[in-house]
Amino acid sequence: MKQNEAMVKMVLDRWFALVKDFDTTLNVLTDDDLNREIVSGKNRGIYLLGHMVAVHDDMLPLLDFGQKMYPQLQQPFLKSPDKAVAQLPTAKELRALWAEQVNYMTPKIKSLQAADWFEKHTAVSADDFAKEPHRNKLNIMLTRSTHLAYHQGQFILLEHKNTND
Amino acid sequence: MKQNEAMVKMVLDRWFALVKDFDTTLNVLTDDDLNREIVSGKNRGIYLLGHMVAVHDDMLPLLDFGQKMYPQLQQPFLKSPDKAVAQLPTAKELRALWAEQVNYMTPKIKSLQAADWFEKHTAVSADDFAKEPHRNKLNIMLTRSTHLAYHQGQFILLEHKNTND
Repeated sequence: MKQNEAMVKMVLDRWFALVKDFDTTLNVLTDDDLNREIVSGKNRGIYLLGHMVAVHDDMLPLLDFGQKMYPQLQQPFLKSPDKAVAQLPTAKELRALWAEQVNYMTPKIKSLQAADWFEKHTAVSADDFAKEPHRNKLNIMLTRSTHLAYHQGQFILLEHKNTND
Repeated sequence: MKQNEAMVKMVLDRWFALVKDFDTTLNVLTDDDLNREIVSGKNRGIYLLGHMVAVHDDMLPLLDFGQKMYPQLQQPFLKSPDKAVAQLPTAKELRALWAEQVNYMTPKIKSLQAADWFEKHTAVSADDFAKEPHRNKLNIMLTRSTHLAYHQGQFILLEHKNTND
């Protein structure tokens, strides 16, 4: 295994592990759980779920995987805080979008070769990328992995069992 | 900038940003806040703080930076769940350890060259590392960054202001 392949494996291992963790938590939670606030006055589970789908949807154009699939989620789950938009998709609808998205993105992510991950993402210019080669596609996976971990730490708090982690 | 230098920058940028975020939250929280549970029946802030220091302390031997500085924290904050150990350090004491640790680790982390980060960490054998070169020192930084992000997502919930992220 070459060094760049090892680097890609390190980051993608994190991504896929965190997606799996989120998915596992989602399958444990009921729709009622998702409609509860994580902590009184803070985001509801349903908002976190929609927020994850919206943020990951935004990765498609950044990684040159195509257009966003769910542009309708940007306003309620990215540009607005929770409870600012009256009509949100239901928990059931958001569960279906999450599953569809994972199924769509996973083979695309796995199809890239190691060298591809060190190419620039689409939101940086060629000139800037020449000076800042860390602004590559793999960095999109890395920053979205820590973002997913951050919200997974919150999402799991909706579980009823007395988890200590 | 070489590819391995770009990769190191990507990971260390995440680490330092997350340490800063945790530090910022810690400075906003009062000792009373730290003694509250994040969610009823779950970990208290003080446990999360001690848990972070204990996990990061464990990075010192893994990265060949020396021995653990706070071995006394392993039992209460790594091997035991919250509220299982009667006598914990105070919030004030843990704040001091966190600050001391950041000051100790930061220059050590910055002193490594890019190539050093792709050497094996101390818990993997040379034979295994030859087959699994992703088990390197940089991967320790990466996995602890997602761990820190996970708990930062919980830690920030102790803030009184109505944050939506």
